[in-house]
Amino acid sequence: MIPHGGNLSRLRQRYPNAPEPLIDLSTGINPYSYPLPAIPETAYTRLPEEVQIRRLKESAATAYGASDPDLIAIAPGTQLLISLLPRVLPAAQVAILSPTYGEHAAVWSAAGAAVLEGAAPEVLESGEVAVLCNPNNPDGRALLPREIEALQTRRMQRGGRLIVDEAFAEFGEAHLSAVPAVPQPGLIVLRSFGKAYGLAGVRLGFLIAEADVVKRVEAALGPWPVSGIAIHLACIALADTTWRQAMNERLAQAGERLDSLLAACGLEPVGGTSLFRLVRHDRAPAIAETLGRAGILVREFPDRPDRLRFGLPPDEAAWSRLENALAVVR
Amino acid sequence: MIPHGGNLSRLRQRYPNAPEPLIDLSTGINPYSYPLPAIPETAYTRLPEEVQIRRLKESAATAYGASDPDLIAIAPGTQLLISLLPRVLPAAQVAILSPTYGEHAAVWSAAGAAVLEGAAPEVLESGEVAVLCNPNNPDGRALLPREIEALQTRRMQRGGRLIVDEAFAEFGEAHLSAVPAVPQPGLIVLRSFGKAYGLAGVRLGFLIAEADVVKRVEAALGPWPVSGIAIHLACIALADTTWRQAMNERLAQAGERLDSLLAACGLEPVGGTSLFRLVRHDRAPAIAETLGRAGILVREFPDRPDRLRFGLPPDEAAWSRLENALAVVR
Repeated sequence: MIPHGGNLSRLRQRYPNAPEPLIDLSTGINPYSYPLPAIPETAYTRLPEEVQIRRLKESAATAYGASDPDLIAIAPGTQLLISLLPRVLPAAQVAILSPTYGEHAAVWSAAGAAVLEGAAPEVLESGEVAVLCNPNNPDGRALLPREIEALQTRRMQRGGRLIVDEAFAEFGEAHLSAVPAVPQPGLIVLRSFGKAYGLAGVRLGFLIAEADVVKRVEAALGPWPVSGIAIHLACIALADTTWRQAMNERLAQAGERLDSLLAACGLEPVGGTSLFRLVRHDRAPAIAETLGRAGILVREFPDRPDRLRFGLPPDEAAWSRLENALAVVR
Repeated sequence: MIPHGGNLSRLRQRYPNAPEPLIDLSTGINPYSYPLPAIPETAYTRLPEEVQIRRLKESAATAYGASDPDLIAIAPGTQLLISLLPRVLPAAQVAILSPTYGEHAAVWSAAGAAVLEGAAPEVLESGEVAVLCNPNNPDGRALLPREIEALQTRRMQRGGRLIVDEAFAEFGEAHLSAVPAVPQPGLIVLRSFGKAYGLAGVRLGFLIAEADVVKRVEAALGPWPVSGIAIHLACIALADTTWRQAMNERLAQAGERLDSLLAACGLEPVGGTSLFRLVRHDRAPAIAETLGRAGILVREFPDRPDRLRFGLPPDEAAWSRLENALAVVR
């Protein structure tokens, strides 16, 4: 089992006296969720029709800058795409720029692939399949789109595929997206709706790639992989450029505020994205425990115990509880 | 592409002057949907937690009569499970009791399996994998649970698996379910939440099988395959035995009323389940066209043009429009 953020039940179990509501800063999900519009009852009762799926693909193509809706497959969350890819596009050698989101290595290993993980970008030159989280989770390290395109041009010469997981290429990192390069042969981009729009429970993700790969993924998923609710919500949210622009600024401000707060407590910045910050501290585990007792869950990394990842506090009450809890650390 | 019911957009395109609202009798989805409860915002915003997924499995185990929640995998719709199975449990020879839901043969063929379709139950004795829709769609033909268990006892002696798609083993057909026999080795049962509860847009289905198969399916799906919305709704709906009992009677009455109406128009009954009726008529295509012009979509079968499948009219207005449209046929 790969450890993930978001486990409030476990926090509650471990610190039964922690003040409620618990504050979840352990995920990279936007805490300022897209405001839920009214959802028609037919989104619940009826199977989504082809025209609705088509409309969602068109909205996604526009929002993500894809040249053609036919280059997009929809899925109930990016995670399911990650889990499926080793079955849809089997490979014997897989290279992953690491450390990163742990599921990539896990699913390829489980499928029997030899997985080479490396911290230097050169690792991406190897493997039948290479995996790049861009920007990277948790450190925010990123390749530029032209670097990705050049990388895949080299890889393609020996038939190698490149999976770019753009779970966090939104808002301040939107310029990093490799989507406009699709359908470059062998390039596969993953986008997460739930993280950016703060609607992770809805389960919606996209795969953007050349048409043949899209067809194979769609065959593996079958005709109605995504709920009518997700389709209805996402068609509205993805088209809302006003919200996205305002969110861009809101996240930038919240990020700076978080930076100041963390720095004031001696938590050394290591990286991050618009939706989270990674910091280093010798007593990181003790700090996580202090926060846990205060009802605040942050992301720890078992294999790098001096790191902590902080999501953005959802509201003023959460900011002030975080500030108070961190004051003890100072 | 396998033809499916539910395509109102195509009906609208073909008969642009058909009266609205269109009436969809082309699916096997319960038209008397489970009343939507309030859904907490966290079901949309947060990733489902392990405890919530566990609760859903417990509710499903109780509702379907499974001996242990660990024998259940959850998925965003049964269709995705059908599409996945050839990848999770590959087989070279697959036998399918036919004619039936077309996706089974399609996905196994696409995966490279030799698919043997047969109309006699003996076909189920062959194949590494055998597929039985029970009760069958569209004709309602069914094996009894003890026949299924005996069949799988024979199959198991040569390591053969049996997939029982119980999409319609609800209400009047609930006694047919093979779920209580799980974990019989090699027995895999599929259940559809959306069809029975009239919430097909939510996308929720279950696979019930021995623990090893459940683990393999869950590995293929990854950690959060189902939306928080589906989990919240289904935990409530699956526990609502009062609703289920009342629905049982309501569907039985609606079914008898539909039988009378169809018989009065010379449509010969061929079979069906609590959620639909299959009829035969020499002029079936003309009848479908008459209904189409009246804004009523029924299910046709390109390979058996003398058959039509009728779902249950959702309300009195729909009953009377159906009655009027069929009067022309008489």
